[in-house]
Amino acid sequence: MTVTTTTDYQTIYQQLGETFDDQSLLFGDQINPDFGHDEMESFQHLPDIVVRPKTTQEVSLVMKLANQYQIPVTARGTGTGLVGGCVPMEGGILIDLSAMNQILELDADNLTLSTEAGAMLKDVATYAANQGFLYAPDPGEKTASIGGNIATNAGGMRAVKYGVTRESVRALTVVTPQGDVLKLGGKIVKTSSGLDLKDLFIGSEGILGIITEATLRIRPLPKANTSLMVPFDDFKAALGTVPKILQSGIQPTAVEFFEADSVKCWESFASQKFPQSGAAAYLLLTFDEQSDEIVESDYEAIAELCLDNGASDAYVLDTDELKKAVWSARDTFLEAIKASTPDMDEADAVVPRSATAEFVQYTHDLAKKEKIRIPGFGHVGDGNLHLYICQDDYDDTTWKAKLSTVFNALYAKASALDGKVSGEHGIGYAKRNYLKNTTSDADLVAMRAVKTALDPNHILNPDKVI
Amino acid sequence: MTVTTTTDYQTIYQQLGETFDDQSLLFGDQINPDFGHDEMESFQHLPDIVVRPKTTQEVSLVMKLANQYQIPVTARGTGTGLVGGCVPMEGGILIDLSAMNQILELDADNLTLSTEAGAMLKDVATYAANQGFLYAPDPGEKTASIGGNIATNAGGMRAVKYGVTRESVRALTVVTPQGDVLKLGGKIVKTSSGLDLKDLFIGSEGILGIITEATLRIRPLPKANTSLMVPFDDFKAALGTVPKILQSGIQPTAVEFFEADSVKCWESFASQKFPQSGAAAYLLLTFDEQSDEIVESDYEAIAELCLDNGASDAYVLDTDELKKAVWSARDTFLEAIKASTPDMDEADAVVPRSATAEFVQYTHDLAKKEKIRIPGFGHVGDGNLHLYICQDDYDDTTWKAKLSTVFNALYAKASALDGKVSGEHGIGYAKRNYLKNTTSDADLVAMRAVKTALDPNHILNPDKVI
Repeated sequence: MTVTTTTDYQTIYQQLGETFDDQSLLFGDQINPDFGHDEMESFQHLPDIVVRPKTTQEVSLVMKLANQYQIPVTARGTGTGLVGGCVPMEGGILIDLSAMNQILELDADNLTLSTEAGAMLKDVATYAANQGFLYAPDPGEKTASIGGNIATNAGGMRAVKYGVTRESVRALTVVTPQGDVLKLGGKIVKTSSGLDLKDLFIGSEGILGIITEATLRIRPLPKANTSLMVPFDDFKAALGTVPKILQSGIQPTAVEFFEADSVKCWESFASQKFPQSGAAAYLLLTFDEQSDEIVESDYEAIAELCLDNGASDAYVLDTDELKKAVWSARDTFLEAIKASTPDMDEADAVVPRSATAEFVQYTHDLAKKEKIRIPGFGHVGDGNLHLYICQDDYDDTTWKAKLSTVFNALYAKASALDGKVSGEHGIGYAKRNYLKNTTSDADLVAMRAVKTALDPNHILNPDKVI
Repeated sequence: MTVTTTTDYQTIYQQLGETFDDQSLLFGDQINPDFGHDEMESFQHLPDIVVRPKTTQEVSLVMKLANQYQIPVTARGTGTGLVGGCVPMEGGILIDLSAMNQILELDADNLTLSTEAGAMLKDVATYAANQGFLYAPDPGEKTASIGGNIATNAGGMRAVKYGVTRESVRALTVVTPQGDVLKLGGKIVKTSSGLDLKDLFIGSEGILGIITEATLRIRPLPKANTSLMVPFDDFKAALGTVPKILQSGIQPTAVEFFEADSVKCWESFASQKFPQSGAAAYLLLTFDEQSDEIVESDYEAIAELCLDNGASDAYVLDTDELKKAVWSARDTFLEAIKASTPDMDEADAVVPRSATAEFVQYTHDLAKKEKIRIPGFGHVGDGNLHLYICQDDYDDTTWKAKLSTVFNALYAKASALDGKVSGEHGIGYAKRNYLKNTTSDADLVAMRAVKTALDPNHILNPDKVI
C-alpha cells in the first residue's frame, strides 16, 4: 500500500469538501473518539477522515477518490460489533453509514422490505410489524444497523426456525472498492443466473465492498406465540434433548440454553430471584404459529419430550408477566456477567448441534484447569455458544496471557468438533488469528484470491478477517 | 489458452493411465457420443478424454495434470441439464462423476446427509425417506445428480416452503482448478467465519471448481400432506391470488400454475381427459404438516381464499387415485409439449411473484405477434415460469430466427420486471448471451474477476455462464 501522509489526507479532505458539508465531513480533531472503536473497545484506532454519505452515489464518489489515492476505507454502521470489524486499524477514511437510515419500501405482494443499510434493526422490525409482517432475524443488539447485520451474517434467537440474516436477504446494492455500484439479487425468490455474488458479500465484513441498500425478506406475522422454560438437573441431559426436539417434527422458533452460573450472576446483578431458580441448566424455547391451538399442541408435545429426557419440570410462560420476567432476565445475562468482573472477552464458537454437550463439558474442564470463570449461554438450537472469559481477580498481564490460552484452546476444540470460530459475530480484527489457525491453507488461499480479485489495492477494511 | 494438439492429449491419456484403469479412462473412439451433449442436445461437442474418478483425490490428480497442460476440464453428473452446462465445448477432459455415487452418512442428531456428488437425487431422497427424513429440494428431474443440482442451484416444486437447493447445502468438498481440495461449511447450521465460498460455488455451474461431496440438510418427514387443485376462468385471477395466499400466514409447500393449452396438449398426448378439464387456468397447491388437522385447516382456508378471489371451484385431491391422476399429468406436461412439435426450446425465466400475470400476458401477446406457440407452466409460488417455444410447422431457418427473437423479447421483459434469465436451470452455454444482455457491466466485471481469481488459466468449463 502507498504510504499516505497527513498532507495527502488534507488534500483528500479538501476534495471531499466539494461534495460533503461540514456536518458530513470530519477531519482530525473534529472526529469523535467513538469512531475509533466498537462495542468491545478492545481494539482502538482513529480514522483520519470521517464522511457521512446520504446516497449510494456519495459512497461511490468516496470510494473512487480513495481508490485513486490508494488509502484505507472502513465502513461503519452503528458500531455495535464485538470483534473490531468497523475499527479503522490503519486510519484512512471511515464511511459512517448511519445517515443512510431510510426505510424505502414495504412490498406486501412480494413480501419484501427495502431499506438503506444504516437503518437500525429495531426500526426495520417495527416498521414491518406495524404493517403485519415479521422481519425474522432477531440478533440481540437491536440498535445494530441492517448493513452491519448483513456484513456479519448476524444470527439471533429465531434462526432455529427462520435461518440467519443470509436467508432473509433478497437483494443488495454494493459499492465496490473501485466505486462501481453492483445491484445483486432482486425481489425474485430464486435465481440461477450467474455467480452468486450476493451471498459472497453477505458475511464479508466490509472487506469486499460497501453495502448501501438491501431488500429483505419479510413474512406474515405469526398469530400466536408462547415460551416454555425447562429446567434440568444436568446440562448434558438438557443439551442431549435438543437434537430430539428438532427431530420431532415440531419446529421451535428459538432454543436457548443457560446454566446456573449465568442465573446466579443475574440474580446478584438484578437483586432478585430468577423465576424457578435452582436448576443446573435450562432450555428456554419459543413457538410461533398461525393459531393458539398449534402453539399449544407444540409446547405440550415438547414439554413431554423434555420430561421423558431428564427435565425436572416444564413451565409454560403463559402470562405476560412471567414471559417478560424470564426473557428480560435472559436479555440481561450479558450485562450481568459484564458487571461481575473488571474485564471480559467473548468466544462465539459454533459446533454441530450433536456436539454442544461435549463442548460445554470442555469449557467447564478448561475453566477448572485454568482457574478462570467462563460463564456462558447460547443459541443451542443452532449449536452456537457465547462464552465469557472473565478477568476477575487476575492482574492485566496474567489475564491477557490466560485469555490467549483459553481462546486458543476453545477454538481448537470447536474446530476438532467440526465447528467454527464464529457463529454470528464475525471475525473482524479480534479473531483473525483464530480463523487462520483453524482454517486450511487451501481455503485461506481461495478466500484471499477472491479478496484480491475484488479489491486489488487492498484498500477496504485492511487487517480484517483474512 | 495454450493450443493443445492431439499428441498432447495422447501424452495426457498415457499419464492418466497410470492412475485410471480401462473402464475409468476413455480416449478418442472409445468415448460414447452421449458425453458430447446434455438432455437438450442443442449444443454438442465431444471431449478428447473421459475420466471416471472414484475419489476426491482422483479428481484432484486430474485437475493438477490439466492445470499443468492448461487444457479444458468439464465436470458432468448424469447429463440431465437443459442449457449445455456439462458439454465440453472446447473438448479436453470430461470428468464423469457418476461413479462417485455413494451416500456416505445420515446423521440424525445433526439432521444431515453426506453424499458423493454423483449420487442421484432420487436415491438421496429415498435414502432419507427410508429413515424418516425429508430431503426437501424436489427438482422435476429425479435422475439428476446431487452435484448437478448444487452446481445449478436447482429449485423444484417444494421451494415455496423449503427454499431451493442452496438452502439445503450445509457443506461442500470442492476441487479447485489447481487441484487443491476445499472443505467448505460443515454440519454446523450457522457461521460467520470468513468469506462464504460455499455459497459462491453453489450455482457456479462448474466454472470455479468441481464439487465432489456434499453434506445436505434433511428434515423430519412431514406426517400429513394433501393437494388442492383450483380452476380459474382467467389466468390473471389465478396469478393475482398467489401473493394473497403467501400473505395469509398459511405456508403451502408448492404452488404450481398451468393453463388450458398445456392441459389440452397433455390430453392429446395421454389420450384421456384431465380431471376437471375446461378451465382457463389452474393453481395446484400442496400442503405438508405434522398432522392431518393442520393440513385440513390449511387447505380449507386457502380454498376459501381462492374462491373469494375468482376461483371457479376448489378440489381437494383427497384420494390417492385423484392425487396420482393430477400429479402424473402435471409431471408429464413437458413430455406432452415435446411430443406435440418437431422441436422446441425452453425459457426458465423468473420474475417477482407480483409480476407473473404481466409476464404471462406478455408471452400470450408475443405468441400472437410472432405467430408461434408458447405453452408453459410454472412454479408461480416462486415467480418461476417454464415456457416452451415450439417449432410446429416452421422450417428450421425460420424457427431459429423466431426463437432468437422470442428469447430476446422474453428475457428483456423478465429483466424489465426485475426478473432474471434463469430461475433454476442455469445459464450454461445456451443462455450466456441472454445473461450478458440483461446484466450490468459492473456485475459482469465482478463475476469475471472472481472467475479469474479462482481459475486464472480459465481451464474449467470454458465458454460457460459469463
